[in-house]
Amino acid sequence: MHPVSWRLGELATRLGVTLRGDPEVEINGLASLEHAQANQLGFLANPKYCKQLESTAAGGVIVDAEAAERFGGNSLISPHPYSTYIECARLFDPSPRPDPGIDSSARISPEARVDPTASIGPFAVICSGARIDAGAVIGAHCHVGAGALVGARTRLYPQVVLYHGVTLGADCIVHSHAVIGGDGFGYAPLNPGWEKIPQLGGVCIGDRVEIGSMTTVDRGALDDTWIGDGVKIDNHVQVAHNVRIGPNTAIASGTGISGSTVIGRNCTIGGAVGIAGHLTIADGVHLTGMAMVTGSIREPGAYSSGTGLMESREWRKNAARFRQLDETTRRLKELERQMSQLQNHLEAGPPHD
Amino acid sequence: MHPVSWRLGELATRLGVTLRGDPEVEINGLASLEHAQANQLGFLANPKYCKQLESTAAGGVIVDAEAAERFGGNSLISPHPYSTYIECARLFDPSPRPDPGIDSSARISPEARVDPTASIGPFAVICSGARIDAGAVIGAHCHVGAGALVGARTRLYPQVVLYHGVTLGADCIVHSHAVIGGDGFGYAPLNPGWEKIPQLGGVCIGDRVEIGSMTTVDRGALDDTWIGDGVKIDNHVQVAHNVRIGPNTAIASGTGISGSTVIGRNCTIGGAVGIAGHLTIADGVHLTGMAMVTGSIREPGAYSSGTGLMESREWRKNAARFRQLDETTRRLKELERQMSQLQNHLEAGPPHD
Amino acid sequence: MHPVSWRLGELATRLGVTLRGDPEVEINGLASLEHAQANQLGFLANPKYCKQLESTAAGGVIVDAEAAERFGGNSLISPHPYSTYIECARLFDPSPRPDPGIDSSARISPEARVDPTASIGPFAVICSGARIDAGAVIGAHCHVGAGALVGARTRLYPQVVLYHGVTLGADCIVHSHAVIGGDGFGYAPLNPGWEKIPQLGGVCIGDRVEIGSMTTVDRGALDDTWIGDGVKIDNHVQVAHNVRIGPNTAIASGTGISGSTVIGRNCTIGGAVGIAGHLTIADGVHLTGMAMVTGSIREPGAYSSGTGLMESREWRKNAARFRQLDETTRRLKELERQMSQLQNHLEAGPPHD
Repeated sequence: MHPVSWRLGELATRLGVTLRGDPEVEINGLASLEHAQANQLGFLANPKYCKQLESTAAGGVIVDAEAAERFGGNSLISPHPYSTYIECARLFDPSPRPDPGIDSSARISPEARVDPTASIGPFAVICSGARIDAGAVIGAHCHVGAGALVGARTRLYPQVVLYHGVTLGADCIVHSHAVIGGDGFGYAPLNPGWEKIPQLGGVCIGDRVEIGSMTTVDRGALDDTWIGDGVKIDNHVQVAHNVRIGPNTAIASGTGISGSTVIGRNCTIGGAVGIAGHLTIADGVHLTGMAMVTGSIREPGAYSSGTGLMESREWRKNAARFRQLDETTRRLKELERQMSQLQNHLEAGPPHD
Repeated sequence: MHPVSWRLGELATRLGVTLRGDPEVEINGLASLEHAQANQLGFLANPKYCKQLESTAAGGVIVDAEAAERFGGNSLISPHPYSTYIECARLFDPSPRPDPGIDSSARISPEARVDPTASIGPFAVICSGARIDAGAVIGAHCHVGAGALVGARTRLYPQVVLYHGVTLGADCIVHSHAVIGGDGFGYAPLNPGWEKIPQLGGVCIGDRVEIGSMTTVDRGALDDTWIGDGVKIDNHVQVAHNVRIGPNTAIASGTGISGSTVIGRNCTIGGAVGIAGHLTIADGVHLTGMAMVTGSIREPGAYSSGTGLMESREWRKNAARFRQLDETTRRLKELERQMSQLQNHLEAGPPHD
Repeated sequence: MHPVSWRLGELATRLGVTLRGDPEVEINGLASLEHAQANQLGFLANPKYCKQLESTAAGGVIVDAEAAERFGGNSLISPHPYSTYIECARLFDPSPRPDPGIDSSARISPEARVDPTASIGPFAVICSGARIDAGAVIGAHCHVGAGALVGARTRLYPQVVLYHGVTLGADCIVHSHAVIGGDGFGYAPLNPGWEKIPQLGGVCIGDRVEIGSMTTVDRGALDDTWIGDGVKIDNHVQVAHNVRIGPNTAIASGTGISGSTVIGRNCTIGGAVGIAGHLTIADGVHLTGMAMVTGSIREPGAYSSGTGLMESREWRKNAARFRQLDETTRRLKELERQMSQLQNHLEAGPPHD
């Protein structure tokens, strides 16, 4: 926790943007326009929140030229306020990054290779044959299984477990309590019971992948489970054995992907989505939260399932009717038939006797 | 595991209730009426289970005066049997509470402050600037990040991870493998891919909060994620960045709350509920299990979504009809139109020619 | 990671199957037919994939007699190719099994009993009164609470937490970051807020049970939570307090089972299923993924709920109609009434005046 402080003029230079206002104001952090104080910087990326400029107490604001016109206060004027904000946020990120070197309490196998620029935290365990590349950070209590590989500058937060033989690329981030490489859920039916199928495959993860806390990526049954470059996975996600996820796909919290399903690139998968096994999901598919996917998706686009929220009393009535929906639809068809008959009958004129 | 034993008479005095029966019976635990043995105490809080009094082998039973009338055995008679049971359960709770003091294997930064009455378990890591208040218990293998604060008498069970700068109030309980303060899932779209937005906010948790195993509370993007006093959160819950949860709200297992959503006080949220981001949920809202919440809820009350369970064969037919539901409803409307026309036609009498 | 190598002839002898082809081929692993290389063994269990035999580069293939007829290459001919594959996979399983003995860094209470043939990994904590039976493996950083019991040959992967008093049978496998014995989610309502009900029960788990990463099994409120022999539980599953799961039931990832529910034997429960509390599920029930179970199930069979995936635009229309479904069904009924009236009217002939 190193408190960082910049003068507004320094920030403008560092970020390559134009300052209008007092270059001497001390800025020690970023905050929302609503909560920013006099030594904090706000930003306006969405003109929708323009109103908040009027009342903000921020010591300065990142804005585009147009908003700067209307705003009287100290401004860092950027053609892309959102990008400037992200760049600025990196300067103020208080997230402590450990120094290189191996903590004296860590347990490193003599058959493991740890780059001297890597950092290994207290009580970490690095097993035989594992390799930790340059600049990687292995947090406290992490477990890196036999033969596992952690790429350059990849960071494991405390208490991540990599099972044996897992491969992680460069510049990845894995959050606390993720588990990569546990056995896939594979059994052959006995009568009664189940026989465990050894899970011989591994897990292969590309570069620039982020994996959230509690997320599990199971090892393959025979071939590897595979996650492409740039994939971003939130907390509590289940990636079952032999799943393949294409580059730059993003997956929100609570989603489960069943075994052997192949997901394309550039997909966005909302929270708590369930995807059955052995499916193929095309590139550029967007699934809304809690979607239930039981068949392959061949075309890009947005897909959903489920029913909307209602007062429980109303819901119970409608849900009861859902049980009759097939019958109801058949009754409608029968009525249509009768209606048509009646109309024909009447068009034919009144019966003659 | 210290086995505890009380005589029935001592228990009556201790709990401030009336004993009818033998004060000398030794009681060493509580059990359900169905499974209680001669040295265990049962209780009847719900008259519905009154029948079980007849056959219980319990050495004594906590009951109200009315039930005591009908029950011949040893009785602790309380006007509020449920409260008396809870009080009694506390006496028999075998959950071991560690002694104060710092385990010799724990790794405490010289820049951390640990109250002498706090307990720090084996292999725990307390980082620079962290503060552990009086009577707090930090379980084995816990990780308390830089600058994090653990309030008085708060207990972290083994292997909890607090990231840097997280604040926990007094009298909280956090179960094993909860993670508090991991990065929120925030990216700006690149083309292709995603740029990580540094998560500069923290997490602020009130007093008397309980947080279950595997639950994640992400740090805010700019401002803090916030959880009010008395909130109870079960296992496997996801609280995304900048969520705010009002006091005394209870959230069951598997629920996910997306970013920036604000939840009121005194809500109860059933298991596996999914709540989209940037919503507002009023005080006193009750969501049934697996509800899908995609819009704000302005009024207290009970809300639900989903469809009921059916035999799979029936379900497939009804689910297929759901795909046509809009069309079906239009067909119904068209039939109503035709019917009305027909009725008008017939009321007008047979056509004259 | 000990690379294993067998000659094809040795494998045939070891597996008790017939070899047709070159007994000298070196085999060092198994792979899918599609990806197998010259020193790997493939297998064909499902005639559907028979086509792949033609193009496989595998050094040998496990097949039945019929497929062997059509396949020219090296064959291990088995009447049950799938069983032979599983047996063979065990031979090639690279999963390292630690040697017996207690790691010098582990923290073992003097009041714990550890069988000399058990293995205790680095930084593991074994509390007072715990018992670790013959051949059991306790991974790095595991926490075995006071009085907990780990049966013979049971394996805990790194960072499993057993709370106090938990009982695990023989030949179980528990994956990293599972938590067994945390407090059930039990509170009595105060006004406002909640009073914690001490969870005095334990957890009792049978033999040959597998429990996935992140799975939680909560301790009972009074009696024990109970899991029968041969039960298989995937990752991210929640088993609440006082649940009982019958032998050989298998539960896929993300499923949540609420308190006091009793599940029969030989059930299969798909991923992300939600089961309400205090229900009874019969033996031999199969629940499809994401099913919502709010009532007891008395008969074996397959059950489902939910709605199928659609393009979001179509879905929104249908979901809106679901809100009107009760009303829609009533309108249909009214139309049927009118139709019937009309038909009667017309059958009665044109009105006479």
